[in-house]
Amino acid sequence: MSISYGAEGQGESTGNKEVTVIDMRSDTLTTPTKEMRVAMAYAEVGDDVYGEDPTVNALEKSAAALVGKNAALFVPSGTMGNQIAILTHTNRGDEVIVDAGSHIAIFEVGSACMFAGVQLAPVPDLMAGETAEKIKNAFRVPNIHYPTSRLVCLENTFNRGGGTVMLPEEMETAADAAKELGLRVHLDGARIFNAAVASGRDVKEFTCHCDSVQFCLSKGLSAPVGSILAGEKEFIEKARKYRKALGGGMRQAGVLAAAGLMALKMTDQLKEDHANAKILAAGFSRIKGLKVDLEKVQTNMVFLDTTGLTLDGAGFAEALEREGVRSIPVGAQSIRFVLHKEVSQEDVLEAVRRAEKIVTDKYR
Amino acid sequence: MSISYGAEGQGESTGNKEVTVIDMRSDTLTTPTKEMRVAMAYAEVGDDVYGEDPTVNALEKSAAALVGKNAALFVPSGTMGNQIAILTHTNRGDEVIVDAGSHIAIFEVGSACMFAGVQLAPVPDLMAGETAEKIKNAFRVPNIHYPTSRLVCLENTFNRGGGTVMLPEEMETAADAAKELGLRVHLDGARIFNAAVASGRDVKEFTCHCDSVQFCLSKGLSAPVGSILAGEKEFIEKARKYRKALGGGMRQAGVLAAAGLMALKMTDQLKEDHANAKILAAGFSRIKGLKVDLEKVQTNMVFLDTTGLTLDGAGFAEALEREGVRSIPVGAQSIRFVLHKEVSQEDVLEAVRRAEKIVTDKYR
Amino acid sequence: MSISYGAEGQGESTGNKEVTVIDMRSDTLTTPTKEMRVAMAYAEVGDDVYGEDPTVNALEKSAAALVGKNAALFVPSGTMGNQIAILTHTNRGDEVIVDAGSHIAIFEVGSACMFAGVQLAPVPDLMAGETAEKIKNAFRVPNIHYPTSRLVCLENTFNRGGGTVMLPEEMETAADAAKELGLRVHLDGARIFNAAVASGRDVKEFTCHCDSVQFCLSKGLSAPVGSILAGEKEFIEKARKYRKALGGGMRQAGVLAAAGLMALKMTDQLKEDHANAKILAAGFSRIKGLKVDLEKVQTNMVFLDTTGLTLDGAGFAEALEREGVRSIPVGAQSIRFVLHKEVSQEDVLEAVRRAEKIVTDKYR
Amino acid sequence: MSISYGAEGQGESTGNKEVTVIDMRSDTLTTPTKEMRVAMAYAEVGDDVYGEDPTVNALEKSAAALVGKNAALFVPSGTMGNQIAILTHTNRGDEVIVDAGSHIAIFEVGSACMFAGVQLAPVPDLMAGETAEKIKNAFRVPNIHYPTSRLVCLENTFNRGGGTVMLPEEMETAADAAKELGLRVHLDGARIFNAAVASGRDVKEFTCHCDSVQFCLSKGLSAPVGSILAGEKEFIEKARKYRKALGGGMRQAGVLAAAGLMALKMTDQLKEDHANAKILAAGFSRIKGLKVDLEKVQTNMVFLDTTGLTLDGAGFAEALEREGVRSIPVGAQSIRFVLHKEVSQEDVLEAVRRAEKIVTDKYR
Repeated sequence: MSISYGAEGQGESTGNKEVTVIDMRSDTLTTPTKEMRVAMAYAEVGDDVYGEDPTVNALEKSAAALVGKNAALFVPSGTMGNQIAILTHTNRGDEVIVDAGSHIAIFEVGSACMFAGVQLAPVPDLMAGETAEKIKNAFRVPNIHYPTSRLVCLENTFNRGGGTVMLPEEMETAADAAKELGLRVHLDGARIFNAAVASGRDVKEFTCHCDSVQFCLSKGLSAPVGSILAGEKEFIEKARKYRKALGGGMRQAGVLAAAGLMALKMTDQLKEDHANAKILAAGFSRIKGLKVDLEKVQTNMVFLDTTGLTLDGAGFAEALEREGVRSIPVGAQSIRFVLHKEVSQEDVLEAVRRAEKIVTDKYR
Repeated sequence: MSISYGAEGQGESTGNKEVTVIDMRSDTLTTPTKEMRVAMAYAEVGDDVYGEDPTVNALEKSAAALVGKNAALFVPSGTMGNQIAILTHTNRGDEVIVDAGSHIAIFEVGSACMFAGVQLAPVPDLMAGETAEKIKNAFRVPNIHYPTSRLVCLENTFNRGGGTVMLPEEMETAADAAKELGLRVHLDGARIFNAAVASGRDVKEFTCHCDSVQFCLSKGLSAPVGSILAGEKEFIEKARKYRKALGGGMRQAGVLAAAGLMALKMTDQLKEDHANAKILAAGFSRIKGLKVDLEKVQTNMVFLDTTGLTLDGAGFAEALEREGVRSIPVGAQSIRFVLHKEVSQEDVLEAVRRAEKIVTDKYR
Repeated sequence: MSISYGAEGQGESTGNKEVTVIDMRSDTLTTPTKEMRVAMAYAEVGDDVYGEDPTVNALEKSAAALVGKNAALFVPSGTMGNQIAILTHTNRGDEVIVDAGSHIAIFEVGSACMFAGVQLAPVPDLMAGETAEKIKNAFRVPNIHYPTSRLVCLENTFNRGGGTVMLPEEMETAADAAKELGLRVHLDGARIFNAAVASGRDVKEFTCHCDSVQFCLSKGLSAPVGSILAGEKEFIEKARKYRKALGGGMRQAGVLAAAGLMALKMTDQLKEDHANAKILAAGFSRIKGLKVDLEKVQTNMVFLDTTGLTLDGAGFAEALEREGVRSIPVGAQSIRFVLHKEVSQEDVLEAVRRAEKIVTDKYR
Repeated sequence: MSISYGAEGQGESTGNKEVTVIDMRSDTLTTPTKEMRVAMAYAEVGDDVYGEDPTVNALEKSAAALVGKNAALFVPSGTMGNQIAILTHTNRGDEVIVDAGSHIAIFEVGSACMFAGVQLAPVPDLMAGETAEKIKNAFRVPNIHYPTSRLVCLENTFNRGGGTVMLPEEMETAADAAKELGLRVHLDGARIFNAAVASGRDVKEFTCHCDSVQFCLSKGLSAPVGSILAGEKEFIEKARKYRKALGGGMRQAGVLAAAGLMALKMTDQLKEDHANAKILAAGFSRIKGLKVDLEKVQTNMVFLDTTGLTLDGAGFAEALEREGVRSIPVGAQSIRFVLHKEVSQEDVLEAVRRAEKIVTDKYR
């Protein structure tokens, strides 16, 4: 595999000219397909701030239908999609129940607090089962000392959990508990198609339990830029204004939406990514000193446990990097690998070989 | 002229099949050139959130150099560029001096207040001369009752003023006054290249007086999406984080940056737009009942005064629209026309003919 | 007059041992009456955060009835009363129409923007007549670029206007215009009892046109601390929570409320203050070099025009200060004097004498 | 004991005329002493917004000295003191490390997020030992996805922990860890004098490790209203402006400060409260069905474990209430009792008797 920069494609090396880089830091690294590039070049465009970009309009319509909502909004990033959802569902001073390890709590720069003025109620292991019960515990009864519980954000697949899938039935139970308490439910579905593909369920079975859903076109689905926020018409209308306020109103965004339309059909790629993740996980597991919780390898992520080595996660990630295998250390003794279309089965096998060599030679 | 939607190009009609639409609502309507589309299709890309998109990096480097700053940031919109500048220059509770008719005060959805938590000090006619004096008057001495004056935002060309140019000398005087008071200066230069081209001055002569500048690639310069925020290195580093927080971090943004790089060289087009604006203004002026302040037609905008007609601005804009000439009413008796690359000299002459016919037939 | 610090009363000097200070900087300087001090000492108290302070409850009930509202809230300051009103009426991103010279726009530290996240639309001379028309002009039609117009704040008496009175009829016209546009109306009535007394009208004739009203117990009415925010029950319930959020929930606040209850009956004092203001204004007017717009001396404020002198406002205020007459310069050639219970008629005549001496000796 | 409303003192009944109420819901219920009431009546006052209230100035000076800081600020509530500290130490988008059960995280209406725009990082059991380690874990390295770690807030005594004391040595270790990471440290010392008295240490031994400290005059120390925020001069200057912005600037606040000055000398009362807490805890412990973790009864709080009863915490609290013993259920099987000057040793013994009777008769 080589990171394909542009239509010509160019390998990238890590100082060592001979070694091809296998980059599994994130599926955000996916570059547009050739078909996407052609579509972008020929895209019909207009001024989307005026609602006149036909390709954006087509994308928003298709995306809404795909997830079973009345309306959708094309946004430049998943973070913006989530933040717009929070802004639209809440008023300042509200509280938002999230998993303590969720993207919203950890990776969105504190925006929900800084811009929406809401407090997060980060629940440890919210997504790890008994979600309904945990929502009930996190809910605040009306009290002059408390912020008002307003919104629950679920994340599916759950990144920090290992790319794990929350099944439609589990989502239903959680969402029902939330609704009973008068809470609204947003789904950070950045990788919801991974969940759908992995569980063999229609994506609508997941999204139907949520008032709004954000999903990314730019991760496993390989569009260069953009995410979708979907919900009911009135919600999206209000959301559209918040997008403008955040500076997410783009002009001839049809050039991006053209790729987005194709991304909606890239779900078969995700199956390959999931298969590759299993191969990688199995490969690592066979190496003495490395451990992978195989039960958690449900989609395109592999979390490698390095406690059996003589160095920590960051150290081993660095050692891999020197051999052209890129990953991200998360926590003291854990490294995350994300599979995506730029990483072939062959790359996976090669990555395992390199890991084995490093471990055997040096760190066991 | 026809609004070219896509590479094939397609005329748009307004119900009346025969009439070509001449759309002068805004220069945001410009669609990418064929060369831009090709460049986008072949763009080298990477994950810009990781700083690894070579095309974005190239654009940011070129753009910074062009406006004489050390660093630059590619953002999805002019609004985001301005808002990031405000966030980066200020702390919550600060006050920002702006023209009461500026884009930041009028058209940015209250974001500076909602997200940055700053108060605007909207000065009537700040951009209309004696700017330094007006800044001094708007400045607040330290006082426990007052927000802290922190930033002045200039706008050049000044949209509400008629697309008028503030000359480098005037900017210098204004900026010097601001700096003497300890204020920082941001330039909303959405159309700063129009100012540079119209005055025959290098754009750096304008920007050198400002701590930061935002300019749009997507207006007269015809890129489909995006703006640049430029400033000193430390400023841009901080700004980059605010961009992430606002959800403006895009992945393979190189597909857009490729067009942006070409936009940087589109300044000749602006000369044509300015010439066409003068032709349109002169044409309107010759029609009895229509008035244009020709002195204010300095760049690509024409503001038509409709007080001589039997209907108001909105009414006349509608009448024009029915004949395929699109514009935007601004205020009770004023209509704005913006010239751009989709409107040829022939289109301008045709627009004048249609206006004349309408006025003569019905509204004088 | 002497600034009475404590029950004993103590004169204050300005370095010159002989001269008694006549302090007309503000009516916020009023100290509690002896009766207030006794009432405070014997006040029944409880924990007001639990709603159990009987004296606070009595004050809130009386205050609400006095201004014709269903409910009221005791707050530590007028600024907090206004800010709670803004927080309660708006959502983040809304716009609030105010006079450009209003207390909310000028003297509240940018809190409406910093904490409520709303944009102010400061209208020049909103309170100076044709208020309804000006509200209509400031109102924004729904547009994705605009913040949402939500609230109008009137100020009566209008401090920057000279302590001038907006009559009930004028308020009605303004409020009707606002309501027709779907706007809510808050009255910054810090000195609404001055307006009522000066015009011989019941305070309810003013407040009935507003959704909420704030008035100060601590200015002319002489309570040591506190203001009232009044409105409908549901509004006040929501407001009570914002008070807690701002840190305005006080415990045994009955000690203050006891004085507040007496302040509600201090309106006769205001008549004296108004009479003294007229005497001061007339006295100043007779001095060659000094000018007062007598038509604007409607309540307890006198704005002195110093353009006829050889020094500016700040300079003359300093000269007066050296002779024990304290005031506040506002603008380049204007000084504000505020009459209140600590300044007797005799003090006023003495102040005029001192002013005359200074002007005659030095500055004409 | 009887809740003394006003100087006369009046018993309160709970429907049952015979039963005296013993109210142990909170030490916020303390009413001012007679000496405080006299001091308030004779207080010298001035306008504190102008810095001219001599009694407030005296209180701020004494309070600062008492906790070993250069400057102090009198504020209407502990919540405001904490929120001002957060506003002053942070910029929007920063992150504040707090105990997940702290007052700031639970009982301050989400203000830190709503008004300061910061994200809370609520650490479970931060105050329960190994605080330094937990701070290090919660600290975020610089990363474009993360809010910036800026501040640690400690709480001493720790309410949710049972009114437990963090010893000076423990505070030092925690604060040193924070400072090493470049973090600032704020102490929510609402009951820091309880900690000092209970451990027999000077209060400065606690506060010297913190950049700022808030403590309440209105809890065990019995002042009717008010708290102190103390810190270095520059910090307090900035804090003063935030107090104004929040609406906490009070005029003749000397009437409250006079009581506050006496509150500073009320620490002997706290010893009695602590003794009474131990008596109450011991009494409860001897009742079959009731449990108290005696090790946690370190100051003026007793947390009663009701798992041995046939009804839950809320139910037992209600049963006690019917017999005139007031407390607050916290969590499903726990009730909090707070001792304070309105509850005598005799009251405590009586409360135990009533509890025993209820348990024996009905709920075991």
